[in-house]
Amino acid sequence: MAQQPPKSYLALKELSQKIHTYTSILGLLHWDQETYMPSGGISPRSHQIAQLSHLIHKERISPSFKKQLGKLIHFSTGKPKVKNLLKCARINVREWHKDFLRATKLPASFVKNASQLTSEASQVWAVAKQSNQFKLFAPFLEKIVAMNRKKADIFGFADHPYDALIEAYEPCMSTARIKHIFTPLRKELEKLLKKINAKRSVENPLLTKEVSKETQLALSHQLLSLLPAEPAYTRLDISSHPFSLALHPHDSRITTRILPHAFMSNIFSILHETGHSFYEMGLPTEHWGTPLGETISLSIHESQSRWWETRIGRSLSFCKLFYPRIQKEIPRFKHMPLKDFYRSMNHVKPSQIRVEADEVTYCLHVILRFEIEQELISGALQVNDLPEAWNAKMQEMLGLTPATDTEGCLQDIHWSLGDFGYFPTYALGNLFASQFFTSFEKGHRDWESRVEAGDLVFIRDWLKENIHQWGRTYTSDELAKKVTGKPLDASAYLAYLNKKYAEIYQF
Amino acid sequence: MAQQPPKSYLALKELSQKIHTYTSILGLLHWDQETYMPSGGISPRSHQIAQLSHLIHKERISPSFKKQLGKLIHFSTGKPKVKNLLKCARINVREWHKDFLRATKLPASFVKNASQLTSEASQVWAVAKQSNQFKLFAPFLEKIVAMNRKKADIFGFADHPYDALIEAYEPCMSTARIKHIFTPLRKELEKLLKKINAKRSVENPLLTKEVSKETQLALSHQLLSLLPAEPAYTRLDISSHPFSLALHPHDSRITTRILPHAFMSNIFSILHETGHSFYEMGLPTEHWGTPLGETISLSIHESQSRWWETRIGRSLSFCKLFYPRIQKEIPRFKHMPLKDFYRSMNHVKPSQIRVEADEVTYCLHVILRFEIEQELISGALQVNDLPEAWNAKMQEMLGLTPATDTEGCLQDIHWSLGDFGYFPTYALGNLFASQFFTSFEKGHRDWESRVEAGDLVFIRDWLKENIHQWGRTYTSDELAKKVTGKPLDASAYLAYLNKKYAEIYQF
Repeated sequence: MAQQPPKSYLALKELSQKIHTYTSILGLLHWDQETYMPSGGISPRSHQIAQLSHLIHKERISPSFKKQLGKLIHFSTGKPKVKNLLKCARINVREWHKDFLRATKLPASFVKNASQLTSEASQVWAVAKQSNQFKLFAPFLEKIVAMNRKKADIFGFADHPYDALIEAYEPCMSTARIKHIFTPLRKELEKLLKKINAKRSVENPLLTKEVSKETQLALSHQLLSLLPAEPAYTRLDISSHPFSLALHPHDSRITTRILPHAFMSNIFSILHETGHSFYEMGLPTEHWGTPLGETISLSIHESQSRWWETRIGRSLSFCKLFYPRIQKEIPRFKHMPLKDFYRSMNHVKPSQIRVEADEVTYCLHVILRFEIEQELISGALQVNDLPEAWNAKMQEMLGLTPATDTEGCLQDIHWSLGDFGYFPTYALGNLFASQFFTSFEKGHRDWESRVEAGDLVFIRDWLKENIHQWGRTYTSDELAKKVTGKPLDASAYLAYLNKKYAEIYQF
Repeated sequence: MAQQPPKSYLALKELSQKIHTYTSILGLLHWDQETYMPSGGISPRSHQIAQLSHLIHKERISPSFKKQLGKLIHFSTGKPKVKNLLKCARINVREWHKDFLRATKLPASFVKNASQLTSEASQVWAVAKQSNQFKLFAPFLEKIVAMNRKKADIFGFADHPYDALIEAYEPCMSTARIKHIFTPLRKELEKLLKKINAKRSVENPLLTKEVSKETQLALSHQLLSLLPAEPAYTRLDISSHPFSLALHPHDSRITTRILPHAFMSNIFSILHETGHSFYEMGLPTEHWGTPLGETISLSIHESQSRWWETRIGRSLSFCKLFYPRIQKEIPRFKHMPLKDFYRSMNHVKPSQIRVEADEVTYCLHVILRFEIEQELISGALQVNDLPEAWNAKMQEMLGLTPATDTEGCLQDIHWSLGDFGYFPTYALGNLFASQFFTSFEKGHRDWESRVEAGDLVFIRDWLKENIHQWGRTYTSDELAKKVTGKPLDASAYLAYLNKKYAEIYQF
């Protein structure tokens, strides 16, 4: 007979599922706001979101949650009070304890002030970006930096205040660890970029000629029909910024956008968001609403999206599968050879905007932000000096100077939302993806011919088996060790880029 | 200086707005389920809805609500404890008191059992309807009838247990009052139907020939552009059953459906749902979240939808405005004269299905249900005898006998959801609409020429000024008296039908 878990465990599970149900409702409010909500609905929607977020926070820090948790573990040490808990239950209790400690550290007044500040700041940021007026945003950014310093003090840190901020997005990383990975990565990427810049461009202007919305949508649906997502569990819509949002493994939605002069952006967005969606759909439904049914971290989430967008979507074998469909829908490609298309869609060209960056320069954009964030938090850089510091680094790393702050330090929304420590996960995701990919390749030496033939199910299944099914059983580093035999480093990513781009640029 | 309301009033207002915010979120869960939710999302959606409904019920009956209310009024009598409350506040307090008493009458166990029963019953009903097996549904319907009797006992009633059930949907009506209105109405409608049946059909088969989805959508958007709804506050989507759902006066959504062989059904659905939506959009936003910002009753809501669908949409002047657009989109109407189109779209023909009924037979379908519901609740009719009773009444009233229970007593979902006392509001809505219309016509003798010229704003504004702006200030009967000088009766409705159909059928 299966062992019955203690009552307090079952009570915690119920509370946890209740919180997740509210969180999934909150997800729908966001999804609707970005897709179908009439514009007049924005003010009532803000109230709905604020009220539900407040309720969720209250439930997370509720005395009954603490009481039940306290029956299972010693609060100060996390050591178990109850023996013989099954492994699954032990993991959930461990993660509930972590979450509870984090959620209860910030005083209610701090949370409220932070929410008011960032709500105002993100509106000011939008105006400042639109009108290229950094000065408008600067006083808000100063307050946000101060708020993040205070947050770091409240959470506590061993080495650098930035450590405490990273933890919210990638619990197993520290400033020193990321520096240790990013410093040589930056050097190697700059070296690779130099080699590429010395070669002739492989860009073909046919890829940026206008493609109608109808044709792009037709390609979207052909792509979806190739991807092994259960149609009953997902849907595709249009929004101004592509995103993926899962209410449940059986209701996981993605969006894309249609840019008339960049039809491949739609294709890569769908691949990227489907990668996120596969992760959510691959979580074990029997653990829904508990940490075992949750994703590990933003880095691992990003590893899944970048896996499908870059390692699969930007591969030659995927081109072999999908390019004939493009040629059929867009007749001007009829006479362009596959190899030329493949090379052009992978061309490398430094640009000002992170979200438009190619595979080689993308991490440089992220490293730039990582360096600046640390300096802002430590006080080594003052907010007023940010545009100058940004522009200098852009010149150093990419050989470009932004003409305006709009395409410089005002381009991303993250800081206005208070999100410091978030950016590194974009680069770490690429690194994790490539490190996982080396293991995947070892087990599937024929992956390229299978992709070419339209078989993608085995890839999704490999990711489900090796990553998705574990929920929060492992930290991201533990998972890297389990799957690849070693903790995260940049070697697999650099080896991939160096090999791929040496072929494309022929050096 | 404006008088500051007492603290307890402000606290109640905040609680009331909180409940409304949750209710609007619940609305979005329903809207999404009927429009865009992936089919796999149904099970998590049911959990989300159940959890949020439970929370809303808890907030409605919360001790803090009772405590604050008790500071303003004597709970048993409803008499004020506080003097000098402004009129607005007095109305809100009066309605909060009513709502609270009603919400607290049903024990939690009753609510839970009812919800489980109807959830199961509605699934069984769908199978029973699909497979024409009344016997499957009968045991559930028996339980639902028993549950409704118990509900009536708990709420209490003076005369007929059915009175207590009607009150949930139309607070100012009683069984006797409705009987008093419906009995002569039935006779008069049967008389009118006989006259019509004696005449030659005015139906033209061109109206039921297939029209493509694209053409129907083009007509939908032309219709929307004529209707005076603020585009920023509304949107149109497709669902299997048309509905209207407002999250807020500034976010009020409607749906329609596209039936290939009934293109006018789409047009009438949009007019009907827009009528509901105008009501919601016309409520005073400054009172949002309190009774003064709520609609009165289902009957008054239905009066608004039927106003736009029938009194405007089925009028000759609206035909003059819209038929040229139909002729342009559907070339086969090029040579059909306006009068013939108008007569055909208003043709009267008894059918089995309520939702497809014309203006003359519609209320007969409703009266049939009203008569049967009362008898089921009083025990005069046994559930097992329902199909026979239904078919006999159909024969009596419409001269038809359903070939199957699927198109007979199983056609509507309402009973499976536990909704007894709901049906009469469909007919009362028509009656209210026509009674209001007589007052509207007195003030706007030129309404037909204005509609013909495309001016519809003055109609919406008249409804807003006379009906929408008052929220729940008046009961539906008080509103009828205020707007038309007398309580509701069927005279205006019968005068309208007799005049219109005498012209159409030339008797």
